[in-house]
Amino acid sequence: MKPGNDSFRTIWLHPADASVVQIIDQRRLPHEYRVHDLHTWQDGMRAIDEMYVRGAPLIGATAAWSLYLAAVASNSPVSSVREAATALLQSRPTAVNLRWAVERILHVVTQAPADADIAALLRADAEAICDEDIAISRGIGEHGVALLEAISKKKAGATVNVLTHCNAGALATINWGTATAPIYFAQQRGIDIHVWVDETRPRNQGSQLTAWELAESGIPHTLIVDNAGGHLMQHGQVDMVITGTDRTTRCGDVANKIGTYLKALAAHDNGVPFYVALPSTTIDWGSRDGLTEIPIEQRAATEVSHVCGVIDGKPGVVRTTAADTPISNYAFDVTPARLVTGLITERGICPASEAGLLGLFPEQSA
Amino acid sequence: MKPGNDSFRTIWLHPADASVVQIIDQRRLPHEYRVHDLHTWQDGMRAIDEMYVRGAPLIGATAAWSLYLAAVASNSPVSSVREAATALLQSRPTAVNLRWAVERILHVVTQAPADADIAALLRADAEAICDEDIAISRGIGEHGVALLEAISKKKAGATVNVLTHCNAGALATINWGTATAPIYFAQQRGIDIHVWVDETRPRNQGSQLTAWELAESGIPHTLIVDNAGGHLMQHGQVDMVITGTDRTTRCGDVANKIGTYLKALAAHDNGVPFYVALPSTTIDWGSRDGLTEIPIEQRAATEVSHVCGVIDGKPGVVRTTAADTPISNYAFDVTPARLVTGLITERGICPASEAGLLGLFPEQSA
Repeated sequence: MKPGNDSFRTIWLHPADASVVQIIDQRRLPHEYRVHDLHTWQDGMRAIDEMYVRGAPLIGATAAWSLYLAAVASNSPVSSVREAATALLQSRPTAVNLRWAVERILHVVTQAPADADIAALLRADAEAICDEDIAISRGIGEHGVALLEAISKKKAGATVNVLTHCNAGALATINWGTATAPIYFAQQRGIDIHVWVDETRPRNQGSQLTAWELAESGIPHTLIVDNAGGHLMQHGQVDMVITGTDRTTRCGDVANKIGTYLKALAAHDNGVPFYVALPSTTIDWGSRDGLTEIPIEQRAATEVSHVCGVIDGKPGVVRTTAADTPISNYAFDVTPARLVTGLITERGICPASEAGLLGLFPEQSA
Repeated sequence: MKPGNDSFRTIWLHPADASVVQIIDQRRLPHEYRVHDLHTWQDGMRAIDEMYVRGAPLIGATAAWSLYLAAVASNSPVSSVREAATALLQSRPTAVNLRWAVERILHVVTQAPADADIAALLRADAEAICDEDIAISRGIGEHGVALLEAISKKKAGATVNVLTHCNAGALATINWGTATAPIYFAQQRGIDIHVWVDETRPRNQGSQLTAWELAESGIPHTLIVDNAGGHLMQHGQVDMVITGTDRTTRCGDVANKIGTYLKALAAHDNGVPFYVALPSTTIDWGSRDGLTEIPIEQRAATEVSHVCGVIDGKPGVVRTTAADTPISNYAFDVTPARLVTGLITERGICPASEAGLLGLFPEQSA
């Protein structure tokens, strides 16, 4: 069960117990692959809050499955689901998929006949959200791989070097990922590909998640610190940057993991194409200016001061700073559309602009 | 003995034993302040190689004192010094001060009369190098503080927010630092100042050294990950960036800690002044194009994979990556002169250009 193969999933219903949802405890990767059971919607919210799961699409799916758990455990499923929905919406303000998934499930609840089996309806919808997410990732992969094929052709088959930031991988979705989907598809098509993996401080999703899933899948990659990408681009060692996004405005501004903006600047300065891969569920059609309209969550100082890893084969944490160092920890930044070469969506690739997005999603033209 | 006060030094002759040079073991900061003795020139080279000391000016001073140790311990001091000089020049290829200091000491040896006390001559010259470095840092402070005063005035006395990368502080020099000298001077003049400290992966010189010396000196500061500076600049939270440099070309290109280039891009994109503070000893008058002419050293992968800190009050190291993750670790990058607002030198501030530098250093016009 490897990322980027059909059998891989990041969240699923327990095969023998329909009151349990299972996830990968991503906090333990790459050191340990451990499956974690969610018994209640509160377990699901904790998994989102404490980042057992992360990545916009997987957060959305976890929220959906959490609402299913709220229903399955309750004698009054409708009120349980509404209570859980209210709490879940508070947990990660930047991730637009969470709101999207919660609202979709609430709609199912609202539309249900009085005698409906709410839990069964929500199970079907949570499964549908996951299946649709896989279809979306595959769509992104199909469209994005064409860009990599073109670079490979231009380089006469020489290695195509892609840089990515954070983890917009299979682990951030249900499978295939967003930024990684074109990479997995390139591997399947025999394109010689190599990925520069940004470490992605402070939580090290690059060194701990992206490096793990690329290694599992046999894709050549090299880990670098977040500071290094500009230097590599200056020296022609990056052919393309692909990142994910947690929220995209109607005009193509992109909120993604803190530091994405710096890579976009470096790509722009060196003529390296900078693409953002996104499921259309992460488009916030109601916002235009990412810098002023997207709330940027601040997370705990300990994410910066303390670093998790292994010591002598066992989990361990070191504090790298002095005990009383003041710390600020913004989790995301906004990359203005002018720095984005294109958006890779499940419907195709478009310029990062309102006109570009509406070309692919004309139903949003209202 | 606090950084940015007259009594502070990062390297000194043992007060009771002239065959021993003492340094601060900077690898242990901020968790422990420990003085380390250098008995031989090999000890000095190891201190440079293993980064007990770092920072271009302090590396130069340590090389000078190491050559003194080579002379003081030897019956044939001239040949000992030449042997040590050859070895020292290999240790950190990017740091131009190392070559400068070694060549200066070799010149003293070459010019010495046959019956001269070589060790005494080298001691005097190593002391002179340190005294001159302090004078240089003070000069940088005097010139640079005028920029901060102007910002403070423009902001009607509101907090001046400076962002710095790596440690170009008192710890990187003999005292006062280069990038920090204007900051220490601003503090002395009562300017309300606050410093954003980049963590500076992979070796965390920001979180471990700059944060330490600013805390010791009582200067308000906040640690951020290297990814965060662009976001802060987008939101008007940075008034000025000041970094140091390990090597500056004749045309004003600047080699500094990896990631400096990304901050320069962000400063440029947001209209934030980006200054580089440098002693003129770090100017490589023989090079013009930093991108093609400055060798960028690659350091060990373990600097990225393993993170040092404390666990339960004791030194500890965790491996954050999988054991077999491929890693690349470039130590420096080059910021092109076009992104540098100005160079702050001991002689004044000038544009980052050949004309600008020659205006301050006309003796290099040949």
